[in-house]
Amino acid sequence: MSGRLVSLEGGEGAGKSTVIAAMEAFLVERGVEYVRSREPGGTPMGERIRELLLDAGGTGMDARTELLLMFASRAQLVRELVEPSLAAGRWVLCDRFTDASFAYQGGGRGLDGSLIAELERQVVGRRPDLTLLLDVPVEVGLERARGRAAAPDRIESESEAFFERVRSAYRRRAAAEPDRFVVIDASAPLEQVVQAARAALEALWQRSH
Amino acid sequence: MSGRLVSLEGGEGAGKSTVIAAMEAFLVERGVEYVRSREPGGTPMGERIRELLLDAGGTGMDARTELLLMFASRAQLVRELVEPSLAAGRWVLCDRFTDASFAYQGGGRGLDGSLIAELERQVVGRRPDLTLLLDVPVEVGLERARGRAAAPDRIESESEAFFERVRSAYRRRAAAEPDRFVVIDASAPLEQVVQAARAALEALWQRSH
Repeated sequence: MSGRLVSLEGGEGAGKSTVIAAMEAFLVERGVEYVRSREPGGTPMGERIRELLLDAGGTGMDARTELLLMFASRAQLVRELVEPSLAAGRWVLCDRFTDASFAYQGGGRGLDGSLIAELERQVVGRRPDLTLLLDVPVEVGLERARGRAAAPDRIESESEAFFERVRSAYRRRAAAEPDRFVVIDASAPLEQVVQAARAALEALWQRSH
Repeated sequence: MSGRLVSLEGGEGAGKSTVIAAMEAFLVERGVEYVRSREPGGTPMGERIRELLLDAGGTGMDARTELLLMFASRAQLVRELVEPSLAAGRWVLCDRFTDASFAYQGGGRGLDGSLIAELERQVVGRRPDLTLLLDVPVEVGLERARGRAAAPDRIESESEAFFERVRSAYRRRAAAEPDRFVVIDASAPLEQVVQAARAALEALWQRSH
């Protein structure tokens, strides 16, 4: 049977890295073959596009340029990795997918949702089978993210108001598609967050057999 | 008054470099302030995208990725160079513009024209005031292009059938918009081609005063 596409979404400091590692551990335990990817990136071409997108020197980037680079990376990822993997029965874990464009370029940058929806339809052509949204108040997430050693990239350097719009857009998408989204309160203790992610994967895994 | 946007289009070996130099000479003679650009590229970000697009190593690029990278470069060009220049009264000479996406990614790669049209509408938002199409039979153009010293880039390495589709798409666009397009037979002697380009610019210049 074909694999399952699972995406993990959330703002800065939501704990995506820890949770995706726990999701991998779950799939290994169940003997599920999978590939892990990330956006932007995930293919050699996508990683080159990622460099352009996150380069903190490129602050003059037009919002539409940002959107189109995101979808350029995503188009390559879908054709080169997602579709062949699913067809071969492997699961695909994606650290961000199309919902991130609705949240960051739509909510954050204020771009017209109809263009993003058209790109989703014509360029991506599918939605994840399951999307985990790690939801955390912006000030909590930013505090965590600032605790990291690395310098912030171009998007991480945005204002708190920008991230409030991103969070609202994510929550609106989750509310509109309750069957696909599982929203996890990522301000809870990490153990609880990981448990909730495992439970969501478990439910999808049960349904897939 | 605001400036004029003029694009130059044509397949491989059509003589665009020579013609654009003659167009610049015309504008200098008339004392018209102008900027010259090219696609993909024309801005620092656009030139970085151009490298990704033309890299002959990237032969596995998905057609949609190619289209979106072209429009990412174009979005940046429009916001950073075209719009401010036109608003300041300068003319903009563009070595390829949106018609090239209809020809290369639409005609050549067979992508759906409705997506390209939507990107034109939402990302570019304008068409040139004048488009010169240097039209030359594919075999003549390729022979000329092969006479150049440089190794062909990723797109120049396409098949003759690909370039036939590109040429047909260009000619269809010109036929559909006869007021905007001037089609120049680029298999004619160079002096005649240059004269035709100057005459087209002259007509636009007269109308603009």
